[in-house]
Amino acid sequence: MARTIGSNGARTAEAIRQAGVTLIYRHGYEAMSLRQLAAEVGLQSGSLYKYFDNKQSLLFDIVREHMADLLAKAEADLAGIDDPMARLKAFSAFHLRYHMQRMAHVFIANMEIRSLDDDHRAMVVGLRRRYENLLEDTLRAGAQAGVFRIAEPKVATYAIISMLTGICMWYRPGGRLSQDQLVDIYTGLVVDGVTGPQGLTAAAERHRALA
Amino acid sequence: MARTIGSNGARTAEAIRQAGVTLIYRHGYEAMSLRQLAAEVGLQSGSLYKYFDNKQSLLFDIVREHMADLLAKAEADLAGIDDPMARLKAFSAFHLRYHMQRMAHVFIANMEIRSLDDDHRAMVVGLRRRYENLLEDTLRAGAQAGVFRIAEPKVATYAIISMLTGICMWYRPGGRLSQDQLVDIYTGLVVDGVTGPQGLTAAAERHRALA
Repeated sequence: MARTIGSNGARTAEAIRQAGVTLIYRHGYEAMSLRQLAAEVGLQSGSLYKYFDNKQSLLFDIVREHMADLLAKAEADLAGIDDPMARLKAFSAFHLRYHMQRMAHVFIANMEIRSLDDDHRAMVVGLRRRYENLLEDTLRAGAQAGVFRIAEPKVATYAIISMLTGICMWYRPGGRLSQDQLVDIYTGLVVDGVTGPQGLTAAAERHRALA
Repeated sequence: MARTIGSNGARTAEAIRQAGVTLIYRHGYEAMSLRQLAAEVGLQSGSLYKYFDNKQSLLFDIVREHMADLLAKAEADLAGIDDPMARLKAFSAFHLRYHMQRMAHVFIANMEIRSLDDDHRAMVVGLRRRYENLLEDTLRAGAQAGVFRIAEPKVATYAIISMLTGICMWYRPGGRLSQDQLVDIYTGLVVDGVTGPQGLTAAAERHRALA
């Protein structure tokens, strides 16, 4: 956990977090040494402990802050939008824009889940679950309203989030397509994916397989 | 590069690769020590050098072998299938089944690209590009034939591959849905995604934005 510190201290803690993101992104959590981290922010190794209990609490702080921020901003963006199709489009656009800007954080949040202690991992997975539920509940509502044709809202949720998150793997600012154009293209794939006839085919196949 | 060794040696080299996959998956490439790796396969650290020049060449060997195997098996699966829709479905099914079975390899191939030397990275990215082209060429052929409605085949390729690869992040054998059912559901999302009306909307929007 981050310790209680004044406003200068808060700036230093933030600098440590930023340096931590960069080093973990580049080398991986286990390989990052506290000596390296301290050097990056111009502190002695021993001084780090004024700001963070240990390396594990720094990782937890980074990943939790990322997931909590993602969740809070998504909830704010979707507030007041009730129509499932409008919510789906808003969620997709939000997720894409957020992930085009926070590639290192996203990489760490996905990859270093393995390095979190059990309690920390459970808390992060809980936040992620709440985030996924924003989409899953929207898909269920749209399916009930007959707007979406999807056999398995949970599987569709995972599939859509993976697709949208993947933009981190290749997007670089200043490319041929603008962020707006990429949002249009990806959102188009998502909307068609959950409204097309195959969603029902899959449901029928599954029903047949279970019968 | 793996050294030239006899058949016992080949078995040992394979055991080293397997242990390397496990350790890198768990700890990250930089954090894995050769001492750890040697202990895992019951060798002295010094003996590893009979099989691999160094840690970097082991990583390259693991990632290259994975990408080459993925590419070769995909090419074999798609051989003789000319119809774009049939090729798209075959590609999706192949990718899903492969990725449900090789989670650790996939994780490493995606995450430890950062740890490869420039030359090694270029070779792996080249193999990955050839693999992506299998899908991109199929999407282009289908768009030309009027079967698919997609504005940007390259973007759609990245989007689809991310969606399908994401199954690694949550799939566990023995769950409620069988592999066949998951293939149906994901493939349905892909097919609807590239045949629905939004693909053209995105193209029209882009055209308007550029006009």
